[in-house]
Amino acid sequence: MTPSPTSPPFPAMLAAARLRNRSHLCVGLDPEPGALPVGLSGPEGIVRFCRQIVTATSDLVCAYKPNLAFFERWGAEGLEALTEVIASVPKEIPVIADAKRGDIGNTSRAYAEAIYERLGAGACTVSPYLGSDAVAPLLDHPAGFAFVLCRTSNPGAGALQDLPVDGEPLYAKVIRHFAPWLDADRMGLVIGAQEAAAFGWAARLAPAACLLVPGIGAQGGTVAELAAALTIEQAERVVVNAGRSIIHADSSPNFASAARRVALDLRDQLEAALKTVGEQHAHGAV
Amino acid sequence: MTPSPTSPPFPAMLAAARLRNRSHLCVGLDPEPGALPVGLSGPEGIVRFCRQIVTATSDLVCAYKPNLAFFERWGAEGLEALTEVIASVPKEIPVIADAKRGDIGNTSRAYAEAIYERLGAGACTVSPYLGSDAVAPLLDHPAGFAFVLCRTSNPGAGALQDLPVDGEPLYAKVIRHFAPWLDADRMGLVIGAQEAAAFGWAARLAPAACLLVPGIGAQGGTVAELAAALTIEQAERVVVNAGRSIIHADSSPNFASAARRVALDLRDQLEAALKTVGEQHAHGAV
Repeated sequence: MTPSPTSPPFPAMLAAARLRNRSHLCVGLDPEPGALPVGLSGPEGIVRFCRQIVTATSDLVCAYKPNLAFFERWGAEGLEALTEVIASVPKEIPVIADAKRGDIGNTSRAYAEAIYERLGAGACTVSPYLGSDAVAPLLDHPAGFAFVLCRTSNPGAGALQDLPVDGEPLYAKVIRHFAPWLDADRMGLVIGAQEAAAFGWAARLAPAACLLVPGIGAQGGTVAELAAALTIEQAERVVVNAGRSIIHADSSPNFASAARRVALDLRDQLEAALKTVGEQHAHGAV
Repeated sequence: MTPSPTSPPFPAMLAAARLRNRSHLCVGLDPEPGALPVGLSGPEGIVRFCRQIVTATSDLVCAYKPNLAFFERWGAEGLEALTEVIASVPKEIPVIADAKRGDIGNTSRAYAEAIYERLGAGACTVSPYLGSDAVAPLLDHPAGFAFVLCRTSNPGAGALQDLPVDGEPLYAKVIRHFAPWLDADRMGLVIGAQEAAAFGWAARLAPAACLLVPGIGAQGGTVAELAAALTIEQAERVVVNAGRSIIHADSSPNFASAARRVALDLRDQLEAALKTVGEQHAHGAV
């Protein structure tokens, strides 16, 4: 198993959006039915809701990350809604389909079609448990980039992910297993914001890998903690996702302007904190 | 984390269908676009195709297992098609949605709604990597049962699943981690047909767990090998899945009768071989 030599468009789009909007912020489009403003409900409501969030924040982000579950809960109409939401994202902002799929070869080919071709996302998330041969069609599709789950941010994540294998946590073996794809920039890693040890393993085993980081905001991680855990190289390319804390900041009809305020604040906090990573390294503090 | 005390309807439905049809066979509804008979294509085509497969085999199976990827590749219309296919399965035959989902808490709640409520499946498959707290909503939903990936049948499955942890393969730790749900019959294990060692670990760590076994037929496992690897208790409840070898046995307009012939043959082979498990044990041969 070796990575495909063609480069997917995602890394370049991400870099361009990051520079243009001076932003490492990714907004998670995970609309909770119970948190929607009055008058917005069902698949049509979530399309209107997400479109307004996108319009209010598209100059502040480097990516959007809709989670498929929040659309699939509405069945076929929900998937139609997701397609509309993705189509409403400005062409120059990449979309990461948070799908966490992982299945055997011919099934992964079908998921690659579903995610990259039907939905039109430029990247997706995948589960590592089946190994690289299984998810290869999602990694090597010419239109797609994948983030593999490495060390997640849920409370019980460590039960399996931290298990010791030859003196290393299991998630370090995941990094080793996918290193050829990480080094070829066909793949990145999902690591929760509070997992400093995991950022350390990633820095040693796949120093240039793009990182997708959930766990800031509603899940309790802070920007300062995150910045303190990253190398310069990681800080440069990190994609920090926040969902609920932005899109559900306000459930009144002013939700979009509230989302913009919170996104702007978090974008600026991230820029300031990630800039200090370089300065700390320059002064030998890290 | 402890399992919900309520029992999902799946285990009883499965047992009843197994007895009624004298069958441990599950037919995998994974329609490959390139293998469909002339005249059947797109989402409408796969509904007609799958309905004819169901009509031709519903007295020979204990369950059906549609893989979501093969429907999601068609986008929203594909999900609509899957809902129609599931609705066409006779009420007394349980449906396992092969979704291999695994995400954090609030997302798993959304998947539980999508799979058990919208699609109407009685069970699904889940990935273990995030741990039990993450998939709890899929495990503890009153309408749902879950099969967790343990040792899969793809060629590279061992790269992570067989990693040694305290002298045990990683997949054995997965069984230990989910043992409370396995013992409560809220959950089962996915183990590939050729993975004799994994059946052994399951027999020791979760002896009564229901097993979902892919890898017979198109993937190369044989019924005799499988039967030789199971305990009596496992043989009694095992669910053996075959997809391509049945549904794509013939790509002519006679595909449904060909599917019936192959399903009948495999059903009978399984019954004969699984019956010998008990006899071998009775004679002390195992």
